[in-house]
Amino acid sequence: MTLSFELAATDGTARRGRITTAHGTIETPAFMPVGTAGTVKAMLPRSVAETGAEIVLGNTYHLMLRPGAERVAALGGLHRFMNWPGPILTDSGGFQVMSLKELRKLDPDGVTFKSPIDGASHRLTPERSIEIQNLLDADITMSFDECTSWPVAEDVAAASMRLSMKWAERGRRAFVERPGYGLFGIVQGSTFPDLRVESAKALTGIGFDGYAIGGLAVGEGQETMFCVLDVTIPMLPQDRPRYLMGVGRPADIVGAVKRGIDMFDCVLPTRGGRTAQAFTRRGELNLRNARHRDDPRPIDEHCACPACRDHSRAYLHHLIRSEEILAAMLLTWHNLQYFQDIMRGLRGAIESGSLSAWIAAFEDEQARGDIQPL
Amino acid sequence: MTLSFELAATDGTARRGRITTAHGTIETPAFMPVGTAGTVKAMLPRSVAETGAEIVLGNTYHLMLRPGAERVAALGGLHRFMNWPGPILTDSGGFQVMSLKELRKLDPDGVTFKSPIDGASHRLTPERSIEIQNLLDADITMSFDECTSWPVAEDVAAASMRLSMKWAERGRRAFVERPGYGLFGIVQGSTFPDLRVESAKALTGIGFDGYAIGGLAVGEGQETMFCVLDVTIPMLPQDRPRYLMGVGRPADIVGAVKRGIDMFDCVLPTRGGRTAQAFTRRGELNLRNARHRDDPRPIDEHCACPACRDHSRAYLHHLIRSEEILAAMLLTWHNLQYFQDIMRGLRGAIESGSLSAWIAAFEDEQARGDIQPL
Repeated sequence: MTLSFELAATDGTARRGRITTAHGTIETPAFMPVGTAGTVKAMLPRSVAETGAEIVLGNTYHLMLRPGAERVAALGGLHRFMNWPGPILTDSGGFQVMSLKELRKLDPDGVTFKSPIDGASHRLTPERSIEIQNLLDADITMSFDECTSWPVAEDVAAASMRLSMKWAERGRRAFVERPGYGLFGIVQGSTFPDLRVESAKALTGIGFDGYAIGGLAVGEGQETMFCVLDVTIPMLPQDRPRYLMGVGRPADIVGAVKRGIDMFDCVLPTRGGRTAQAFTRRGELNLRNARHRDDPRPIDEHCACPACRDHSRAYLHHLIRSEEILAAMLLTWHNLQYFQDIMRGLRGAIESGSLSAWIAAFEDEQARGDIQPL
Repeated sequence: MTLSFELAATDGTARRGRITTAHGTIETPAFMPVGTAGTVKAMLPRSVAETGAEIVLGNTYHLMLRPGAERVAALGGLHRFMNWPGPILTDSGGFQVMSLKELRKLDPDGVTFKSPIDGASHRLTPERSIEIQNLLDADITMSFDECTSWPVAEDVAAASMRLSMKWAERGRRAFVERPGYGLFGIVQGSTFPDLRVESAKALTGIGFDGYAIGGLAVGEGQETMFCVLDVTIPMLPQDRPRYLMGVGRPADIVGAVKRGIDMFDCVLPTRGGRTAQAFTRRGELNLRNARHRDDPRPIDEHCACPACRDHSRAYLHHLIRSEEILAAMLLTWHNLQYFQDIMRGLRGAIESGSLSAWIAAFEDEQARGDIQPL
């Protein structure tokens, strides 16, 4: 057996599950903090765990360039390297390499690109991507795929998706099964329903331990994204986890969970934490704004994170204006805490069959907006 | 009563004491981490406390410019603002203002200067410095003084010191006594023994709750600094704490404790933490150095900080090269832990009358140098 996935409850199309990996279990729906270069930026690993996160994401592209996959392997794998004993999912490197544009050259076998760090030439193929992720000791390995930008013509999207499906098949053959380790395929096809259906069929024909939906949240808008999910999700097997890559804002996550997605990752909470942005039950705040300058109240009085428990908006505003590292530390922690609070809320609501009511309350609170100035 | 100071033990001229303030006690000899702008950079307050620090230093100059002393007072004082419930010492602003050079104008009454943040004009006088420190709610307030650069001609040093003594007297008059709050005078006089003696006599004539020695560790070298201490310390009362400002490297602290200093502050552990520098039992390390790239060992296997307990040199090196915030967080923690370990060691050695043996072992370990490459 590779990864096990148990479905504990459903509420409509939403699912409450549990993934068991070589490094522990993940209660789903789950949000995975992004730990690009072997660190969830501005957080100690123990603090990431304190927010309730059970799995983090590592980036193949960044880690292969620095410090190098073989070096991480020699140091005992990514879990030991970054001191995250729990499950780790690594992406395939495809998304970042494709974003290099003029620095990379695509051919049917793979991609050659130059390192922005030192100009050295590197090559990624479906097989090498799998090999790197194995060296990193990822519990969940992602298929190497090509990603199109958005918007894209249908024939370009089709050709790209079909190349990715060939690569998915090569990756599947290259992946060596081990207990508690799994390989996910990635559905592509931009916003074209026929292509998404074709991609999902191709992947389920190959057979993966989980299915990701890629190429979304790239500018197409929430409504279009949900339409793609509504077309794609019914094509995926019930008994395998579903992962919506790179999503998203709280309302995106909630809408996707309602439609049957089990896993998410996104840089918004961590990047926002370094740019004065707080995600809250009552919407998004920019703590750099002068209206917080004299406000003795926390970001959210109901939040259990150290930023909210121990500090005022006035203090956070001061730290941001002073460009203090502690600003990033506290705001990142708050944002990750809030994202995990959402996931806990969603899991509880699905368990108790009250997801609709939970979502109504969530939307109501978000719409209400921030607390009034004193 | 203002501040109480009990002497628990002595070993030669070294002293083991306890200062009791409005916000708690400080076991001495003590090292005070620097919390310039209301944050010990890259540390949560709870983590600062975890290292064993009992008092932190805040900077009047930085806090008066941003967020402003009146704002901090309106938000409940610096303890609440930065969530540090323990004792706080604030400097007077003198040292930073004098360093502004062309941006400031000195007159016998005080200093006028422009804020580097927004160009606004500000004025510090002995009375205003005391008022600001009172607004910040500092447990220990420092006299406003002029600091000379080094080297300096004796007549310039004399005139500057005498001005500082006049300002010390004005500050003493302006300071309103409250239980658990105290005012320290600052001995000046550069490296001229006669001036140091004159300054110490002037201050003890006025009468302060503690005595600081300022204007050292500015380039004069350890030997000269210790000579100044040997001349100055005997002029200070036995029953009041002695604070050596801005010092220093571990060996400076050890030598000063041996001579009878009770309190220290220095940016080295925190600044070093942001510039790849680790202070250890076996000397100073630059973790950016390539020799650490593949080293699975911690900085110091006997250190209890998270950097040493949870991470390899290879990982810290990777974080530094990747310019990750976590590098500063972990290295700062390590350095503060090591400085507090030194203070704990010194306190224990004085208590047991074994300071000479402790210092010999300390010097032996420092001289041995870092562990060998694998």
